[in-house]
Amino acid sequence: MITEGLKGRDFINLRDFTREEIDTMIEVGLQLKADNTIRRRHDDILPLRTLFMMFFNPSLRTRNSFEAGIFQLGGHGHFLQPDATRLPTLEGEDQGYGSERISDVARVLSSMGDAIAIRILGDKVNWEYEKSQKIIKEFAKWAEVPVINMEDNKDHPCQGMADLMTLREMWGRDFTGRKVGVTWTWGSSPKKPIAPHHDFMYVASLFGADITFARPKEMRIDPEIEAAIKANVELYGGSYTVSEDMNDACEGADVVYAKNYVALDLLPPVTSKPQPEEMVKLFDKYKNWIADEKRMNLAKPTAQYMHCLPCERGAEVSDAVLDGKWGTACFHEAENRLHAQKGVMACIIP
Amino acid sequence: MITEGLKGRDFINLRDFTREEIDTMIEVGLQLKADNTIRRRHDDILPLRTLFMMFFNPSLRTRNSFEAGIFQLGGHGHFLQPDATRLPTLEGEDQGYGSERISDVARVLSSMGDAIAIRILGDKVNWEYEKSQKIIKEFAKWAEVPVINMEDNKDHPCQGMADLMTLREMWGRDFTGRKVGVTWTWGSSPKKPIAPHHDFMYVASLFGADITFARPKEMRIDPEIEAAIKANVELYGGSYTVSEDMNDACEGADVVYAKNYVALDLLPPVTSKPQPEEMVKLFDKYKNWIADEKRMNLAKPTAQYMHCLPCERGAEVSDAVLDGKWGTACFHEAENRLHAQKGVMACIIP
Amino acid sequence: MITEGLKGRDFINLRDFTREEIDTMIEVGLQLKADNTIRRRHDDILPLRTLFMMFFNPSLRTRNSFEAGIFQLGGHGHFLQPDATRLPTLEGEDQGYGSERISDVARVLSSMGDAIAIRILGDKVNWEYEKSQKIIKEFAKWAEVPVINMEDNKDHPCQGMADLMTLREMWGRDFTGRKVGVTWTWGSSPKKPIAPHHDFMYVASLFGADITFARPKEMRIDPEIEAAIKANVELYGGSYTVSEDMNDACEGADVVYAKNYVALDLLPPVTSKPQPEEMVKLFDKYKNWIADEKRMNLAKPTAQYMHCLPCERGAEVSDAVLDGKWGTACFHEAENRLHAQKGVMACIIP
Repeated sequence: MITEGLKGRDFINLRDFTREEIDTMIEVGLQLKADNTIRRRHDDILPLRTLFMMFFNPSLRTRNSFEAGIFQLGGHGHFLQPDATRLPTLEGEDQGYGSERISDVARVLSSMGDAIAIRILGDKVNWEYEKSQKIIKEFAKWAEVPVINMEDNKDHPCQGMADLMTLREMWGRDFTGRKVGVTWTWGSSPKKPIAPHHDFMYVASLFGADITFARPKEMRIDPEIEAAIKANVELYGGSYTVSEDMNDACEGADVVYAKNYVALDLLPPVTSKPQPEEMVKLFDKYKNWIADEKRMNLAKPTAQYMHCLPCERGAEVSDAVLDGKWGTACFHEAENRLHAQKGVMACIIP
Repeated sequence: MITEGLKGRDFINLRDFTREEIDTMIEVGLQLKADNTIRRRHDDILPLRTLFMMFFNPSLRTRNSFEAGIFQLGGHGHFLQPDATRLPTLEGEDQGYGSERISDVARVLSSMGDAIAIRILGDKVNWEYEKSQKIIKEFAKWAEVPVINMEDNKDHPCQGMADLMTLREMWGRDFTGRKVGVTWTWGSSPKKPIAPHHDFMYVASLFGADITFARPKEMRIDPEIEAAIKANVELYGGSYTVSEDMNDACEGADVVYAKNYVALDLLPPVTSKPQPEEMVKLFDKYKNWIADEKRMNLAKPTAQYMHCLPCERGAEVSDAVLDGKWGTACFHEAENRLHAQKGVMACIIP
Repeated sequence: MITEGLKGRDFINLRDFTREEIDTMIEVGLQLKADNTIRRRHDDILPLRTLFMMFFNPSLRTRNSFEAGIFQLGGHGHFLQPDATRLPTLEGEDQGYGSERISDVARVLSSMGDAIAIRILGDKVNWEYEKSQKIIKEFAKWAEVPVINMEDNKDHPCQGMADLMTLREMWGRDFTGRKVGVTWTWGSSPKKPIAPHHDFMYVASLFGADITFARPKEMRIDPEIEAAIKANVELYGGSYTVSEDMNDACEGADVVYAKNYVALDLLPPVTSKPQPEEMVKLFDKYKNWIADEKRMNLAKPTAQYMHCLPCERGAEVSDAVLDGKWGTACFHEAENRLHAQKGVMACIIP
């Protein structure tokens, strides 16, 4: 367990941390989870700290897990929606009295509190892929307190931590020999984020899993993330295989992670504007990509279905799968948002 | 005082509880109110508990009394408006990526906190009378933590508890010989809830009051509630009389509860769609149904006016009544939302 | 230091307080700031108190400083936006079921908590200059707990306290011999408040500063405030000079307070309706009124730029000034919102 070097750090993407640092935050989170189980309070860990939670996009799990989590650690979270303040903007995008430069917002908030968490993605940045993390990094540049990424277009590291905690609770720290099936599914909306896929495969690859990733050929992931996954496999063992057949991900799998996500090739910067109608047409070629009983029966008898939620029932997953024996891990995954993020906050907030 | 059987219970309507259980929660609430009076803190009762407060409809009293109440008990309330998450829906009503099934929302929230409170009524369920409580019960079915009804189309049990506490502070536990005048009044809006009338009469009938209920013949209440009130009269004494003359409710009364409410016969399921224009026309036949000085002078000299608030001044009640000697209980009734709900939470939240 | 007479007081404008009372609240705030620096907790000062924060207008600094501040003192702030309740209205302005009379809202909230803070200005009162403070005073009339002004059309006393704390940190308690340059600047919006100018000059004049106030001749301030500033100069020394040349405010100044604000002569009650187009035209005659490097170089070498923020970069102030050596005080000023308001709350909330 690493005991130094985490306090004061930003938590923007998992690639900024070593495997040992990630390990430490998970172990701290698990210890706090055990505390909760026996109602041992630990509000002396971050007493009277203030966490600013800026939500440009809707949230159920993220907001409630952060707000409950900082409270259990002794602090308080401010639920901030940009329309109740003014729009924080990058240099060159000021809108007179309707906006405020991020450099100013970040400096002001960091003088009044102890950490700034931000969710910004999708239509809130006109689907410009790199822009959302750029905004979060601009906050981090100016803030004197840790900045936490609560999901952008590319990364959702808090979800990755919860996924990792869930896998570890099932298998222990070493994923060698575990088949992790990961797949795109059909969905009715051209708006679902790809970041959860990125971070799920990234954490699985850190601990030696055998990953089979299935998606239609048009549904690539970010090459930078794919390279990072491959580099992990080099370092830590396991494997990473890509397929165009959803069954390949399911067959013999220990977990099946199945979720819809947007087509990067129909969004900026590849196209000049988002192409939602084209995307829906493309998706509809693959309407049978769904995690249903037939598919889950290809996996191991003990296999679990995983999804960051909210899921689109009947599109990404059938009711029978989510509400049946395969659905347990999915709700552990949601609950672990609370515990994993408490581990992160306890480690990085001074 | 009942000391067992309340922890972990849902609080959806008062008919789910025995008179003794209701008594216990009121007595606990009154004890905590006494604590407040002398600033004796009691934040060791529900330390570090999280209460999720889901408001589909606007609220002043309910939101602030729950948020202050859980804080005084040692916990923290999350103020959740569905447009900041996604719409929780029943099976068969999913809206793709814009909604999330209640079964999933309830399971996720109960893994992250300790109770879920919900307000949903009126236009938020397209005025389908039974649907709002059905939604709350669907949350309760899936949640592993207590679910609290913060008002639906049929019941407002927290208001009923505050009303009961207010009556008890005036009269003690036994309402024998007390005349409780309850009446519909005119109002300009076809949207005011009927649930407060239901629960006010229900709690008055639990402790032996003589209830005279006046309303235009078209303005019936829910027959299930009326039957429950009559059953209470059978069991606990007192009486329940219905009249079509507002003066009958006021004459010789100890309290006059006077408020507008919707016409159930102009709403689903009786009609296929809500009939707001018809309802306004119907109401306008009874424009003189108002709690004014003339009417209050029919009551006992010590009589008090009651209303759950917000009231429509000049329609339901005159300024002279609300701001005069008759108006005191009405503000005690509002304050008692805080204390009564603390009694409920302290008893049912594990 | 005054030790009596502050508990239970409303904090609506600075003119309601003596210089000694203002001193006391600043000193308390500075002591709590020192506590924060060494992480000495002081949540035993207002334990379990509830602060209602009603925001009719957007806010970043005010909301976050109050919410963090009351938390550090041991209490909890409710973030209330009127659209989540119903509109609080003055007598004669009721809107049926869509509004609730301020007398009722104030009485209900004060029975449930310990202080009510309100921000209401500009378009939320149709730019009627006196109306916003009238609304706050109506709350104060009916509330049994302290009412705090979080900015109205005329006064922003919390900002004034933060400004005073910032000046005192630079110069000590006596401002004799300090030149305080205050100026209007150009801005693109006809909506920026004048209250910060009022309170900045008011606090500077309480402690003997030499104020030079520059503005185009059409951009007068409130004569009541101007008279109060002159009265302070009579009592406490220093001077107050008005000019129509921005350079006069900057030359030899120790601080330059430069911000845009509305033209009172183009708003009610002077005009019957707000004249935003006329105002923009008027402003555009003075586009060169900006705090840029050239202007700041007229001031003392150690001079600081001040602004309550959010500022309009490129209009009120240049990036080089705000992000350069002149910009430090501006961010201290923002941070001091937290500490100054904690001083106020600790003194007035019972």
